[in-house]
Amino acid sequence: MKLYEYNPFPNPRRVRMFLAEKGIKDVEFVQVDVPSGEHRSEEFVKKNPSAAVPLLELDDGTNISESFAISRYFEEAYPEPNLMGASPKESAVVDMWQRRVEQSLMGCFVTYFHQATEGLGALELYQNKDWGEKNREMARSGLEQLNKQLASNQYVAGDKYSIADITALCAIDFALFIKIEKLEDYPNIKRWYEEVSNRPSASA
Amino acid sequence: MKLYEYNPFPNPRRVRMFLAEKGIKDVEFVQVDVPSGEHRSEEFVKKNPSAAVPLLELDDGTNISESFAISRYFEEAYPEPNLMGASPKESAVVDMWQRRVEQSLMGCFVTYFHQATEGLGALELYQNKDWGEKNREMARSGLEQLNKQLASNQYVAGDKYSIADITALCAIDFALFIKIEKLEDYPNIKRWYEEVSNRPSASA
Repeated sequence: MKLYEYNPFPNPRRVRMFLAEKGIKDVEFVQVDVPSGEHRSEEFVKKNPSAAVPLLELDDGTNISESFAISRYFEEAYPEPNLMGASPKESAVVDMWQRRVEQSLMGCFVTYFHQATEGLGALELYQNKDWGEKNREMARSGLEQLNKQLASNQYVAGDKYSIADITALCAIDFALFIKIEKLEDYPNIKRWYEEVSNRPSASA
Repeated sequence: MKLYEYNPFPNPRRVRMFLAEKGIKDVEFVQVDVPSGEHRSEEFVKKNPSAAVPLLELDDGTNISESFAISRYFEEAYPEPNLMGASPKESAVVDMWQRRVEQSLMGCFVTYFHQATEGLGALELYQNKDWGEKNREMARSGLEQLNKQLASNQYVAGDKYSIADITALCAIDFALFIKIEKLEDYPNIKRWYEEVSNRPSASA
């Protein structure tokens, strides 16, 4: 299996962390030079018409894009440790929180970055600063919602570490990297952040 | 179980179609009067801080929001017929296409509606017409990508009907309803649309 990725970006990190938590090692990492536009090359777009990393290429040539879909592959092929829920209810709660942090944190931070800052420079073909700023505001609601959830739960989706923690950590580290948030404003997130950042997977 | 929904909206329809395909009947439907803002009432926001329908309330009081997470609950609790993939590879391909049509069709059409048209009138607290128009353009790329996929596949995610077909149909019917697309431009989508619209679930 080959995983096409660009190491510094937050979405590829979600998949690397997922693999690290599972202890999966038989994946070859291939760097795609996104700042040079390699993800938009004819060769890469043939693999992923959405022109984005990460992308998983299975040994039979099947291409899987979308971090969540790639994680689903590994969850089913390597069930332990469970990261996506072990009962109908648990799976639904994990999916719900995964989706919430993906939309309200990762999605909003990334949109802010691409729309309201210099972003990736010449690669930004469309920008809408007002929409970017609106996303920064929406991300703040997302952080407040997460801070409330973590007041009474050890992890994002309850008492078990899951894919929702991975998505949230990658999103929040991206926000810290582009310097638009400080954890001091969200004490429960800060407590959780320190714990999950200390797991070996965080440096994958 | 109670499913809080607003019948005319496209996302609640995704869950109703999913239930119809599974033959699940032990769900009580509760209408939430979205045009009057009931989804933003204190009582409803306690159930779903994201203030959106659909929302599934389990008999133990657990609330599950997000159409996809609700579908995951039913997929695992009622495995047959399978709608989300029956092997690691199949599940990943279904998730990938579900996500693609959700983002590039449903997400873009709904964003266009809320941002660039009158939308829900007084309920629209923020509008950005340019971003709405950009989404209409992105939806067109999504339709072209889907039209290409359906040239060599009977269904959205391959040769089996899946949740990806449900999401795509609900999105496309919404686009037809708000009159921003015509299927004549996408012959393979048209062929698929006629087939899936004839399944009993389409009128759920």
